Amino acid sequence: MKRSIILLFTFCWSWVLAQNNQQTKFVQYVKPLIGTGAVDTNSLSGSNFPGPTMPFGFIQLSPDTRDAPDDPASGYDYNDKTIVGFSHTHLSGTGVADLFDVLLMPSAGEIKLNPGNAKVNRSGYRSSFSHDQETARPGYYQVLLKDYGINAELTATGHTGMHRYTFPASKQSHIVLDMDHSLDKKRGYWECRVIGAEIKVINNHTLEGYRIITGWASLRKVYFHAEFSKPFDSVLMANGNSKPHAVNVINGTAVKAAINFSTTDQEQVLVKVAVSPVSIENARMNMASEVAGWDFEQVSRQCADSWEKELGKIKVEGTLEQKQIFYTGLYHAFTQPNNMADVNGDYQATDMTIRNAPDKVQYSTFSLWDTYRAAHPLYTLTQPEKSAAFINTMVRQYDTYGYLPIWQLWGEENYCMIGNHAIPVITDAVLKGIPGIDAGKAYEAVKASSMTDHPGSPFTAWEKYGYIPEDIESQSVSITLEMAYDDWCVAQLAKKLGKTEDYDYFIKRSAFYQNLYNPKTGFFQGRNKDGKWLSPFDPLSYGGNGGSPYTEANAWQYTWYVPQNVPDLIKLMGGDKNFTAKLDSFFTLANKPGNVNGNASGFIGQYAHGNEPSHHIAYLYDYSGQPWKTQYYVSKVLNELYDTSSSGYAGNEDCGQMSAWYIFSAMGFYPVNPANGVYAIGSPILKSAAIRLPNGKTFKVNVENAGTLNRYIQSVKLNGRTYNKTYITQNDIMNGSTLEFIMGAKPNKTWGTQAAARPAGWGYINN
Amino acid sequence: MKRSIILLFTFCWSWVLAQNNQQTKFVQYVKPLIGTGAVDTNSLSGSNFPGPTMPFGFIQLSPDTRDAPDDPASGYDYNDKTIVGFSHTHLSGTGVADLFDVLLMPSAGEIKLNPGNAKVNRSGYRSSFSHDQETARPGYYQVLLKDYGINAELTATGHTGMHRYTFPASKQSHIVLDMDHSLDKKRGYWECRVIGAEIKVINNHTLEGYRIITGWASLRKVYFHAEFSKPFDSVLMANGNSKPHAVNVINGTAVKAAINFSTTDQEQVLVKVAVSPVSIENARMNMASEVAGWDFEQVSRQCADSWEKELGKIKVEGTLEQKQIFYTGLYHAFTQPNNMADVNGDYQATDMTIRNAPDKVQYSTFSLWDTYRAAHPLYTLTQPEKSAAFINTMVRQYDTYGYLPIWQLWGEENYCMIGNHAIPVITDAVLKGIPGIDAGKAYEAVKASSMTDHPGSPFTAWEKYGYIPEDIESQSVSITLEMAYDDWCVAQLAKKLGKTEDYDYFIKRSAFYQNLYNPKTGFFQGRNKDGKWLSPFDPLSYGGNGGSPYTEANAWQYTWYVPQNVPDLIKLMGGDKNFTAKLDSFFTLANKPGNVNGNASGFIGQYAHGNEPSHHIAYLYDYSGQPWKTQYYVSKVLNELYDTSSSGYAGNEDCGQMSAWYIFSAMGFYPVNPANGVYAIGSPILKSAAIRLPNGKTFKVNVENAGTLNRYIQSVKLNGRTYNKTYITQNDIMNGSTLEFIMGAKPNKTWGTQAAARPAGWGYINN
Repeated sequence: MKRSIILLFTFCWSWVLAQNNQQTKFVQYVKPLIGTGAVDTNSLSGSNFPGPTMPFGFIQLSPDTRDAPDDPASGYDYNDKTIVGFSHTHLSGTGVADLFDVLLMPSAGEIKLNPGNAKVNRSGYRSSFSHDQETARPGYYQVLLKDYGINAELTATGHTGMHRYTFPASKQSHIVLDMDHSLDKKRGYWECRVIGAEIKVINNHTLEGYRIITGWASLRKVYFHAEFSKPFDSVLMANGNSKPHAVNVINGTAVKAAINFSTTDQEQVLVKVAVSPVSIENARMNMASEVAGWDFEQVSRQCADSWEKELGKIKVEGTLEQKQIFYTGLYHAFTQPNNMADVNGDYQATDMTIRNAPDKVQYSTFSLWDTYRAAHPLYTLTQPEKSAAFINTMVRQYDTYGYLPIWQLWGEENYCMIGNHAIPVITDAVLKGIPGIDAGKAYEAVKASSMTDHPGSPFTAWEKYGYIPEDIESQSVSITLEMAYDDWCVAQLAKKLGKTEDYDYFIKRSAFYQNLYNPKTGFFQGRNKDGKWLSPFDPLSYGGNGGSPYTEANAWQYTWYVPQNVPDLIKLMGGDKNFTAKLDSFFTLANKPGNVNGNASGFIGQYAHGNEPSHHIAYLYDYSGQPWKTQYYVSKVLNELYDTSSSGYAGNEDCGQMSAWYIFSAMGFYPVNPANGVYAIGSPILKSAAIRLPNGKTFKVNVENAGTLNRYIQSVKLNGRTYNKTYITQNDIMNGSTLEFIMGAKPNKTWGTQAAARPAGWGYINN
Repeated sequence: MKRSIILLFTFCWSWVLAQNNQQTKFVQYVKPLIGTGAVDTNSLSGSNFPGPTMPFGFIQLSPDTRDAPDDPASGYDYNDKTIVGFSHTHLSGTGVADLFDVLLMPSAGEIKLNPGNAKVNRSGYRSSFSHDQETARPGYYQVLLKDYGINAELTATGHTGMHRYTFPASKQSHIVLDMDHSLDKKRGYWECRVIGAEIKVINNHTLEGYRIITGWASLRKVYFHAEFSKPFDSVLMANGNSKPHAVNVINGTAVKAAINFSTTDQEQVLVKVAVSPVSIENARMNMASEVAGWDFEQVSRQCADSWEKELGKIKVEGTLEQKQIFYTGLYHAFTQPNNMADVNGDYQATDMTIRNAPDKVQYSTFSLWDTYRAAHPLYTLTQPEKSAAFINTMVRQYDTYGYLPIWQLWGEENYCMIGNHAIPVITDAVLKGIPGIDAGKAYEAVKASSMTDHPGSPFTAWEKYGYIPEDIESQSVSITLEMAYDDWCVAQLAKKLGKTEDYDYFIKRSAFYQNLYNPKTGFFQGRNKDGKWLSPFDPLSYGGNGGSPYTEANAWQYTWYVPQNVPDLIKLMGGDKNFTAKLDSFFTLANKPGNVNGNASGFIGQYAHGNEPSHHIAYLYDYSGQPWKTQYYVSKVLNELYDTSSSGYAGNEDCGQMSAWYIFSAMGFYPVNPANGVYAIGSPILKSAAIRLPNGKTFKVNVENAGTLNRYIQSVKLNGRTYNKTYITQNDIMNGSTLEFIMGAKPNKTWGTQAAARPAGWGYINN
């Protein structure tokens, strides 16, 4: 009875707190369920997860609806009806699954730790749930597990997940700990395999253990320390299909435990689980440093407060839906890269040794082929300290690995996608003057990564042929185009550091894209070593991931990729008129592309917003004198290809890139070349935006007549003066300028059409 | 010309040194090629390797004749005609292959790093060789690589391998570095897979790198630092089937390098390679601490000197062949366990963290099912410091893993074979008073390992049924018998520590073997949970490795396994007469056993000296009053089942156990119960033996009339007094006693036949 009163009080207090939270300014707009489901079976989920995480936090504690997650890679599909448990690490928005460490699941009644038919129904503790009885907001996730009548609530600190399970009265209440939960090992996906794992009973309220696992990340060591608020009656453990038995330690490759309690009605059992990629000792230390007691509300509030602070860096006004999309996007953009260092700075280096980061942080989850485009420019603008830390981490990979990250997961290279797009990220940050980066050392890493043959980057052939021959390396057109862009970045960084010889060398390589332009077809096309064009050529035909010769795209999509020199691309294509006509065709050619890769979706003609190769293309009309068409297509994407539903993204959210596209574009500008200090102007859809800058200034955007139908810019003022350029610069932003748009339903075909208005710039624009 | 003179001088000096080595007392008898080949395709190789190692050293640098070694597990088969290279880590005498890290191979002419048909002829740098042009002795291995006319010489320190390659004149001289060489990955053997690897060019004479590999050991990290005495002209590197190219770093899962030189005729290129299981930094440190310069001869001499010191602990006289077998046996027994700690004490714990050993050593390669029988008692006697260090390592496994090692490789449990035979090893060492062991902590580990269900050890069933039911755990008869023995050891240790309750508990369990004795057949047989005997029963029928219900043996062989209480076994079998008659049958029953496991060989009737279950059986006649039959069979094994050929062992040498059997037995005694301080007397075949004891005393054995035909003991004196017991005790040895035998061609059927003469002893014999 007394307990019930306490519980009632707790619930009331929770409710009061929840109401308080409702009054906060920014976190209320974050809807973590956006991006958690595909709209239909032919499209991809955003692949976001709904559970709590700190901004850039290591622990990302979230429900998994899949036993052996594959697609969506986040482990949670909004369309699923059951939950298998709550694991502590996830990827947000990726196309490939991994992590899912240390799964907990409460249950009541008879438990089957390892039911016979492992393939079909591995988890004997799965429960149905309903979105009606599910809550997700920054720092908090709640769901009713209907099969057991258990309410599960989750929150997190940087290294610790906190669970609050409210049980029914039962002599058979359990919390399952599953150290075998992972991406699908059974079908050899990414050759995933648990190499070793352990669970140890330390005392009647503490478990510890670890698993060593190879998967998409080649080797992850995951150590945990778990404390329970209520002493358990018994712990049964099993490895694989062994019979669960009462032991104090179990080693194996598929270890699980059932932690058993007797519970009264509405009794709450809290669990806190700290994780470390280094050791059990470090997991203990992480918990001791972050979560002293059992105050779930406090931990949840701290997490929400951290988000409030981060989200508050950009204050926007617009419709409720726009604000929900915007702030959820910012939330997703700040969900990674993740700090992989323990609280003392220990981290696992690429050579699998444990090292200590002098700045106590070591970030990973660098989906660079996606995020160099707009997510990193967003970090440069809003997270300069973290940008520097990201780059310091990348340079540490160079130290042990010999070159910069391509796709870095859990501190390890997985070579997903193409290019060396740590280079634009570093170049952008150094040229924009982000403090805390050793530019000389960073340049050493950039240059080595541009000279050392490595998987996907055959520089010897690059220099010999002036393009990547398809018979040397597949995806050759995409690699050629992106490598030329990266080389342009190296050249800019060399110039900045006064390395003229290097500048000359790399600026020459940055024009190699020209060698794959076929003037007869008007497309970038693949060639072999012998110089012959690959044939037959069909500009509609898709290459898959690793495809030939275009990466997850067709010729139509990749042919626009010369962000370092759009004027030259226009020239190659025969001038403004031809270029514009070709863009028109691109956006209107309805012919179904052949063998479309699953990542391509959100089609407007051949434009596919669901994948990154298209992301800059709508802005290219700015470069050829028809900015109203940029405005048309950008606003079309903003209004039609984003919404607040579970399928609110046009495809995988891609670690912040899909969100960053929205964040920039909704404010009215976008970094077509992510490293030249220039943002092309599109079509702002918000009423206003204000970016709180690290220098204390605020950059403001005000939009008159904002509205779905008013997609066209009528006029622009910068700091009160009429502004006719179709771009702004980094300096405009950092000076705390005010950018004012007047929008209308009809295109103003004179604004921004002059040659001088174009967002050109062969080098970094520093004015 | 000048170079030739220097070379001539070097060769002469080598020859002088070699002659000096010939004058040393003990190393001259070691023939590392013993045990390196099987006599025919139906038998197993000793699986020893011929290359140099320090006693108990980490680096075991040896030629590999196999691309993807499997059988023999040492990688070298004397019957092979070609060598693929020289790798730095090996196992000696095991039945399963692993290690083979950091393979170097010199060659000249065109090189194929990765020839097309990877399966058939993976190595494009393989060379023929001939035993005529091959030398192996402690601290030195030499072979002429005939295809290239390159003389290869090897030596080693604890953590560093040193290579001296003498090249012909060639503009295309190479040294291949292969980081992909391993046990057979292609057929998924032990799921072997390289998870990650790197080679880095540090400067024109230094390479560094690592590989992370899963195989028989679940996860090994192998870091190297390599220095070349001659700057190389170029380095080409490849990953898998990629084209070798000139880069300064390569990462991948199958990385190789060709290090290229121009050489003059007879030019020597030296390479030293330090290895660490912890980090490249530690590998560098290991080399700096052990090998400062390029003095190959000095390193080789130091290695030989270390062996001389270790081998000199037992001085024996006998025929040349006996001394060669004996000292090669001692060499093989001291080849492992291996110190896995770097010179600063860093090591990888079972939880894959790096820890530091306070005593700066951490041993592994514990093939305990083999070695607890005689190899560890040999270490207890001759290597007390290392015995303590072995046990400290085992206790450290308990600390992180929850129980003691079963088969520990590279610091990791692989659960090979059965039982928990760290327990007799610890019990033996503690009861014999070896210093440097925390007995209380060791007992904690021993008890936990005897109470905690773990793979192969279902103690809950053990306590419930009083035997291991075959329908709960296969190999149930073997496990029951060996578990009962281990329990006897726990009881003795409990008694020693005054834990009476524990003594009572475990001494009761130690009699559980009785529950599997079927008086109707006179054999230990398997039962299911329901208590019924498994049927049909055929005492000849073999179980394989993991076999049912006998491990690598049949009922005939396992039925003799009650070393803790042979008198009770005699009683079970109906007394001395029946017991002796059954032993007679055992040694004479020529019926071919069914489905013989490959490990069984060296048959005398059903006795199979090639595998461990038989090892104590010939000594059992001592216990039933007919010691002359022990003498007959022991001398028969000594004389017929060991020789100095490449197939000098009757099967796998098993990490020193086959050798330890010979070492004890040739001196005239053997620890039937490895942990009760008693050695049963057999038939000495040496003229004399003297064990230099750690307490400064010397235990001596003198044998009058030693000779192949004089296999029978006529009389014995201990310290000058007539001695009629068929056993001696640990105290007899440690007191520096002198044991004198008079041998003859006819059995003395009165000596040692009295009841009081029998090597009984229910507890540790401390007199």
